[in-house]
Amino acid sequence: MSLVIVGSLAFDTIQTPWERRERIVGGSGTYCSLAASFFTNPKIVGVVGKDFPAAVLKLFKARGVDTEGLEVRPGKTFYWEGRYGYDPNQRETIRTDINVYEGYRPQLPAAYRKADIVFLANIDPDLQDDILAQVRKPELVAMDTMNHWIRSKPEAIGRVLKKVDILFANDEEIRMLTKEANLIKAGKKILAAGPRLVVTKKGEHGALVFGRKFVFGVPAHPCEDVVDPTGAGDSFAGGFLGYLDKMKRFSHPDIRRAAVYGSVLASFAIEDFGIDRLKTLTQREIEARFRRFKKLVSF
Amino acid sequence: MSLVIVGSLAFDTIQTPWERRERIVGGSGTYCSLAASFFTNPKIVGVVGKDFPAAVLKLFKARGVDTEGLEVRPGKTFYWEGRYGYDPNQRETIRTDINVYEGYRPQLPAAYRKADIVFLANIDPDLQDDILAQVRKPELVAMDTMNHWIRSKPEAIGRVLKKVDILFANDEEIRMLTKEANLIKAGKKILAAGPRLVVTKKGEHGALVFGRKFVFGVPAHPCEDVVDPTGAGDSFAGGFLGYLDKMKRFSHPDIRRAAVYGSVLASFAIEDFGIDRLKTLTQREIEARFRRFKKLVSF
Repeated sequence: MSLVIVGSLAFDTIQTPWERRERIVGGSGTYCSLAASFFTNPKIVGVVGKDFPAAVLKLFKARGVDTEGLEVRPGKTFYWEGRYGYDPNQRETIRTDINVYEGYRPQLPAAYRKADIVFLANIDPDLQDDILAQVRKPELVAMDTMNHWIRSKPEAIGRVLKKVDILFANDEEIRMLTKEANLIKAGKKILAAGPRLVVTKKGEHGALVFGRKFVFGVPAHPCEDVVDPTGAGDSFAGGFLGYLDKMKRFSHPDIRRAAVYGSVLASFAIEDFGIDRLKTLTQREIEARFRRFKKLVSF
Repeated sequence: MSLVIVGSLAFDTIQTPWERRERIVGGSGTYCSLAASFFTNPKIVGVVGKDFPAAVLKLFKARGVDTEGLEVRPGKTFYWEGRYGYDPNQRETIRTDINVYEGYRPQLPAAYRKADIVFLANIDPDLQDDILAQVRKPELVAMDTMNHWIRSKPEAIGRVLKKVDILFANDEEIRMLTKEANLIKAGKKILAAGPRLVVTKKGEHGALVFGRKFVFGVPAHPCEDVVDPTGAGDSFAGGFLGYLDKMKRFSHPDIRRAAVYGSVLASFAIEDFGIDRLKTLTQREIEARFRRFKKLVSF
């Protein structure tokens, strides 16, 4: 199988109540690809400036991430600055400089066009739509989005939503998208709009997966030190879709396990700033935490 | 075994975004006893006024709730009025008339004093302490509390906390009690203060049980129509402790199953106003929902 991930590569400046880090490497595509790389060889699509660290491009290669779809352009890499409250689910964007993403229209390399799974990470929904026009009948299309696009481009989101199989979103986004306070009703509304699966990421409260005929819930890994919540959702999606790509099946039991692997990858990502924890993560640690999730919920 | 429940019996006026109900029967002791009555014959302690409906006292008897510890006094039953937002976890107290609870010092009947399990539902922590002085070495003591007491009587709460085995609290209360944003760290702080188990009730996000050597998480039952969230926490405690009283054991597997039965009872309680759903609930429905919880989390 093959998994194409379209997302951002960025420099992030992150302020938590305890610490500040300036211009560390982040971006939805970065987190998602690294997380997926523990299960498969994902193909990444995005653009970076000349200032993007060669060491990270090397890391992608070392981890088996295909970077043929990654453009390097003159100019500066996308920049995001954000601040977290004591409640890590609360995030405030302080500044966004789209830089090289200005006017960027991704062109998928030929080898990417026959992807089996396509993940449209959080980017402009018009770009997400554009990508879908370039792929040939993928078996599974998943998308993420954010409050910014739900507010500014609701029609474009509605258009993309009709074409995807899975929506990843946090509880606030799902409520915003459906104007429905109850998450179960909100999930049903989204299923009626196109996707056959809604994956609600609830941060410290875990995740809830809704299908037309099943619901699956998983609590979050009990984490004492949430160092940096950035990238948790993208690492979740990377673990989830990477696992499905590896399994080459999308049965309900596969989807349940995919959601647990997503939770595992997210739980590691937040243990350190940026992608630092994903850099040192091992397969062994992933499997050990998967077993801890089993224990966490068994009765 | 025997389970003594000390709590309130009340008239509640409830305003949800969709409906208002005036002076319906509620109270922590009421919900908890009815929930526990599906597993054991709980003994209730509390006071009501002459205006308390005979039909509810009859219901207690019909469900095997021992009411020897229930005083009927001249005057009015405790009254509470509250309002819920679209987020059912958000509750505002509009009015509280303590009425017959004014100057009330519960006197446990002789048969209650050798209780195996004592539950101190949300009442004045000084009263909770008073009760503990009247019981002879129970095997398990559990307490609940609320933000009001944490703010107004922190020392009394600290004193009771040292003497109990289990604290039931919602996530907001646990953070308030420990001044710790991270729930896992907060749970550990409480374990250090006395209890050997902390049960964090998170409403639509389920529950998390912390012991010194284990953690157990259970998502909430996916409920589309939260009609009235009142009594969810007390029904949880009733199901939890009622099950343990029935099993006569407090092993980790028992505690995990107790937390699921607690979730099951809470999930039913919120399906209708006040105690209406608990009135019609059957053993068969409880077992069916227990199995649904199994499915919900299995992977």
